[in-house]
Amino acid sequence: MHNGRVRHSVTIRDVARLAKVHPGTVSRALNPDTRALVNAATAERVADAAAQLGYQPNPIARGLKTNRSFTVGVLVPDITNPLFPPILRGIEDRLSRSGYTTLIVNTDNDSERERAALETMRARHVDGFITATARLEERVLSGFALSGTPIVLVNRGLEDGSLPMVGVDDRAGTLLAVEHVSSLGHRQIGHVAGPQDTSTGHQRYLGFLDAVASCGLDVEACPVSFASAFTEAGGARACAELFADGRELTAIVAANDLLALGCYDVLAQRGMRCPEDLSVVGFNDIPFIDRLRPPLTSVRVPQRDIGAAAGDLLLECLADPAAGRQIWLEPTLVVRGSTAAPRDPRRGSGTERLPA
Amino acid sequence: MHNGRVRHSVTIRDVARLAKVHPGTVSRALNPDTRALVNAATAERVADAAAQLGYQPNPIARGLKTNRSFTVGVLVPDITNPLFPPILRGIEDRLSRSGYTTLIVNTDNDSERERAALETMRARHVDGFITATARLEERVLSGFALSGTPIVLVNRGLEDGSLPMVGVDDRAGTLLAVEHVSSLGHRQIGHVAGPQDTSTGHQRYLGFLDAVASCGLDVEACPVSFASAFTEAGGARACAELFADGRELTAIVAANDLLALGCYDVLAQRGMRCPEDLSVVGFNDIPFIDRLRPPLTSVRVPQRDIGAAAGDLLLECLADPAAGRQIWLEPTLVVRGSTAAPRDPRRGSGTERLPA
Repeated sequence: MHNGRVRHSVTIRDVARLAKVHPGTVSRALNPDTRALVNAATAERVADAAAQLGYQPNPIARGLKTNRSFTVGVLVPDITNPLFPPILRGIEDRLSRSGYTTLIVNTDNDSERERAALETMRARHVDGFITATARLEERVLSGFALSGTPIVLVNRGLEDGSLPMVGVDDRAGTLLAVEHVSSLGHRQIGHVAGPQDTSTGHQRYLGFLDAVASCGLDVEACPVSFASAFTEAGGARACAELFADGRELTAIVAANDLLALGCYDVLAQRGMRCPEDLSVVGFNDIPFIDRLRPPLTSVRVPQRDIGAAAGDLLLECLADPAAGRQIWLEPTLVVRGSTAAPRDPRRGSGTERLPA
Repeated sequence: MHNGRVRHSVTIRDVARLAKVHPGTVSRALNPDTRALVNAATAERVADAAAQLGYQPNPIARGLKTNRSFTVGVLVPDITNPLFPPILRGIEDRLSRSGYTTLIVNTDNDSERERAALETMRARHVDGFITATARLEERVLSGFALSGTPIVLVNRGLEDGSLPMVGVDDRAGTLLAVEHVSSLGHRQIGHVAGPQDTSTGHQRYLGFLDAVASCGLDVEACPVSFASAFTEAGGARACAELFADGRELTAIVAANDLLALGCYDVLAQRGMRCPEDLSVVGFNDIPFIDRLRPPLTSVRVPQRDIGAAAGDLLLECLADPAAGRQIWLEPTLVVRGSTAAPRDPRRGSGTERLPA
């Protein structure tokens, strides 16, 4: 960056502001490879604005950008999971500023579709990838590390840390949830765990085990059941299992919000009230969860920030293929109406039981 | 289709079932242009299954498919609006069966980004488009009708009907909403309308005017305020306007669910209860809206069906560029806890008011 001629004080954003267009449009208009994508009058306005401000594209960056398609591929496992749209918005916020179009593929949690989507997009010459899919094999991902096409992982990492990633500390988040209900007086706390072949499901399960130990809870009184998918139906089935053998529970910590909604459904079927009969905690703090009956206490994951960090990290990798780091964002707990002190911490299922 | 050698009884789905793969994988494996996208063992299994069943790809369809990229571009205006993910799933359900990968672009309701996304995808040789964006200029869309790249519109049409589209009857849906609250006894019904430069916003507004007339309501007692965006914040601002001049209302019909949620926020701020003090009706019946406090009465739009119909329609257009029709799906009303009879149809804002 030791180029005396670069005027660092004038940026692409200044030009965009003067020309009253998106920074992405400036990038396209000033790049000979992409100028045809911008309408002629707009391109002229951008060129005028750039001249007026004395804007000079950074020649080093310009050099790196040669042959760029200015498209990025993003893979999400399930677009109907409300967790992902804000992450996608965060990604786009950052990439569109730099002139990139984001192509999203929903893989439906199907590893065959994930692989096909990656190949299809690679064939269309995307400059890089961001993937939030949990099931893509390490083998396929590791191939990327070698191929030179930058890829950033969201909400999962490779065990050897060889690819850049953005995630939250899932174990710490689950600890927050268990500590919260434990501090309210709960001692019989069940965990509705996510699928164990996903990194988030597995880490949150490990976090639950950690938390049971660190809160001094009785492992026998804190059962775990595993959902086969991060869905409401999966949560309902796993929650029903927790109660199947007449077990006594006063709180459930679910591995995500959709699983917690499945728990709400089971409570309703069993005529139990939340939080009076059972406290429920979710994970992710997805949109609208604060408007539910009752509003769900949840571990907040800064979804849009995760997306923005992933977008920034990919831009770093595009500028310098040797860049790439692991970014961990801290979860927080948002306490709402679905958690309260147990009416009687040792209460059984019969209402006729006398206080101990 | 008068080809005697085509065995209509064996389909790509039969081959997929036998080979235990996705129909999309069969399509890729049997197409010389895309075979490299499938792993070798899978391709062989597919070829074996096809041979065993005597499957012969339809040669006419095969001919049409030459030089296909098997990718389709889908434009959505706001991926964080819960209306769109189920539509996207419906689209993918149909297209992936036929071997197509769906590339989604979120345009953030920005016509410059919509145009750039279309151009970017066209440059990447997608075979066709589905667009749910409301603001794309008629001029740009009409260009597609001429260019030969099939495009299907979702939730909007061109005035001259020159492009294939799938939508719901927005006017009929709004009529259902107004008839419902009118039949409960409401006579002072406000409309929180959507942006009038969107087809849905405009049609639902016209539907409200129709309904006021057909239900014999007093136009003066049924005010309208216009939101600048289909968002909770937009709905809250428009709802506050309805009350700004001390007007008396007992029900609000909102042009979509997010606007209705904005109305909920204003009610909470004003210490009013729903439905006791004010009934609220939404439109779209988005996911989770049945879990709100109170559960929202809403005009149900069959989102996944709309997506599926759009996917089917695009496949028709890909097979026969002269195909293309307008598909209208009927909305229905889902009555939930946010609507009830007014306590006193002529009640004002003061609680001390005596019955008339």
